[in-house]
Amino acid sequence: MDHALALAARGLGNTWPNPAVGCVIVKDGRVLGRGWTQPGGRPHAEPVALAQAGAAARGATAFVTLEPCAHHGKTPPCAEALVAAGLARVVTALTDPDPRVAGRGHATLRTAGIEVTEGIRRAEAAALNEGFLKRVTRGLPFVTVKLAATLDGRIATASGESRWITGPEARRSVHALRMRHDAVMVGSATAIADDPDLTVRDMGAPRQPVRVVLDRLLRHSPDSRLGRTARDVAVWMVHGPDAPPAARAAWAATGAELIETAATPQGLDLDAALRALAARGLTRILSETGGTLAAALIRAGLADELMLYQGGLLIGAEGKPMLGPLALSTLASAPRPRLMSQDRLGPDILSRWRIAPD
Amino acid sequence: MDHALALAARGLGNTWPNPAVGCVIVKDGRVLGRGWTQPGGRPHAEPVALAQAGAAARGATAFVTLEPCAHHGKTPPCAEALVAAGLARVVTALTDPDPRVAGRGHATLRTAGIEVTEGIRRAEAAALNEGFLKRVTRGLPFVTVKLAATLDGRIATASGESRWITGPEARRSVHALRMRHDAVMVGSATAIADDPDLTVRDMGAPRQPVRVVLDRLLRHSPDSRLGRTARDVAVWMVHGPDAPPAARAAWAATGAELIETAATPQGLDLDAALRALAARGLTRILSETGGTLAAALIRAGLADELMLYQGGLLIGAEGKPMLGPLALSTLASAPRPRLMSQDRLGPDILSRWRIAPD
Repeated sequence: MDHALALAARGLGNTWPNPAVGCVIVKDGRVLGRGWTQPGGRPHAEPVALAQAGAAARGATAFVTLEPCAHHGKTPPCAEALVAAGLARVVTALTDPDPRVAGRGHATLRTAGIEVTEGIRRAEAAALNEGFLKRVTRGLPFVTVKLAATLDGRIATASGESRWITGPEARRSVHALRMRHDAVMVGSATAIADDPDLTVRDMGAPRQPVRVVLDRLLRHSPDSRLGRTARDVAVWMVHGPDAPPAARAAWAATGAELIETAATPQGLDLDAALRALAARGLTRILSETGGTLAAALIRAGLADELMLYQGGLLIGAEGKPMLGPLALSTLASAPRPRLMSQDRLGPDILSRWRIAPD
Repeated sequence: MDHALALAARGLGNTWPNPAVGCVIVKDGRVLGRGWTQPGGRPHAEPVALAQAGAAARGATAFVTLEPCAHHGKTPPCAEALVAAGLARVVTALTDPDPRVAGRGHATLRTAGIEVTEGIRRAEAAALNEGFLKRVTRGLPFVTVKLAATLDGRIATASGESRWITGPEARRSVHALRMRHDAVMVGSATAIADDPDLTVRDMGAPRQPVRVVLDRLLRHSPDSRLGRTARDVAVWMVHGPDAPPAARAAWAATGAELIETAATPQGLDLDAALRALAARGLTRILSETGGTLAAALIRAGLADELMLYQGGLLIGAEGKPMLGPLALSTLASAPRPRLMSQDRLGPDILSRWRIAPD
């Protein structure tokens, strides 16, 4: 199952709206087939592994990180494929919470006389597919908040200078991080200030993440890098009901997708915006917004993890803060992320923090 | 020599005004004696090791982390003691820059027919005694700036709440850090706000660090914890020429030492204040000031290292910044500390950064 989990992890960021699944077929201690969900979410892991194993799969055991699907969707059900291949035993890590599956995959296998063992490495499989599980069970994507700051928590000088706070190793790590997410998200302020591209570069990414801009009034220019490349890599502009019709038309003409969601005068309703993104299939979003929007996501309880890149420099109190106002009344009410790992990236530190309750 | 360096390190923080030296006496591959500078700076490392070795020292080799002293001070010169013991060879790491020694220790040994090898592990010995070397060569102490902050670089909420940002492991580490310094220094703002004790607790410290308060107008109360305990552990109040006579008298009555130094209306002249402390023998100072004074020390080029304790919580932009204004004009002029090490302390991160040029 550890092997199957490692295979599954290869799919993270490019299988949405489907989960990233891994499958290993074993007989007499020999691995006959290995598969993982392919870019775009199809084929699933099981048919890939079955095709590798061929006729030898008869009587073998399959280790799958998620309950095999049982519904006729865009692919035939994997549970039926496993039955047809004549497997003797199927070991799974997790029951699929998708109401179209939800135990029916396991039932199909058992009905066919296959021995089924469930729940092996359940916690690891749940952590791996947290985005998929959160989307299916709560209608929200898993959100990783990325922040890059100085040692004193600043992201730019008073005059707005911010290049570069971290070194090339950290910037490369950000591209790897983008690749493991379905989408990269910024706010309009960052989009306008940086005119970012938000693609994954130099990583051989099988599928570029969707580029999402939270932009209530569609203030970002359709003639920006995002607008000019929207036909090559998806751009989703999330805007409010009050976005001007001309801006909507101009953005639509670029090939970007327009997503209207609720808003207040202060900005978009973040919960509604993220639900709209999950409804379109996104399971894992990397937030690369500025400090104000990052604080708003954390304040609203919508951030799951924090990836903090810290560069070895000091800007001082005049600099722009990495995190906007959190409106705390007491220290006891402060969010207390839990340290999960820390690494040195050249001259910088990367630490990973769990914000959401486990 | 590595062994001698490890012994020398035991003295850090309690040998001032003397350097922390280690000495190992070896003959035929056997260690006959080991010594390090004792609390208070005397006896020196060499006589301690020689006393252990006794008559067996004749014909042996001594490894000493610093050139043996050659002047008649409060102890007889160690160079003469090594000669009298009949050593065949002396290996040293560093020439003592103290003008009273400065090569004369080595010369004394050579004149007596002892084989002398210099410069073994020079860099390590220089790093270990950087405070002593800086005091002797530049008239300034080595300054470690300690800061404890949240992930977003805050040291307190808007209302001033700051207990606790770091966990018990980090707080214990701060006591160990104090123990390795000759003095702990705060500004009047921290002294007044926190009424700190600034002693080393639960560490079996052989000598408490001097407690230094930078307090231009002597605003801190003599009836504070520091004032009430000034006869037990040294308190040095560094004040400006404009400190009121009544406050001077009240602080003098507590047993604290008063050190007058230059000041501007903005505060004490930090360079002058640190020179006054070095002139009194301090070689290593741990600065536990607030963000404003920490920034002033860094801006003035007086900070050598930064020890950054980061607790896993977020306070947001309303919180008090860990570092005050640095008055940068461009990002290129920002101080760029170099990462030396990082550790996990329970739920927190401790990272050590070199601020001063190497």
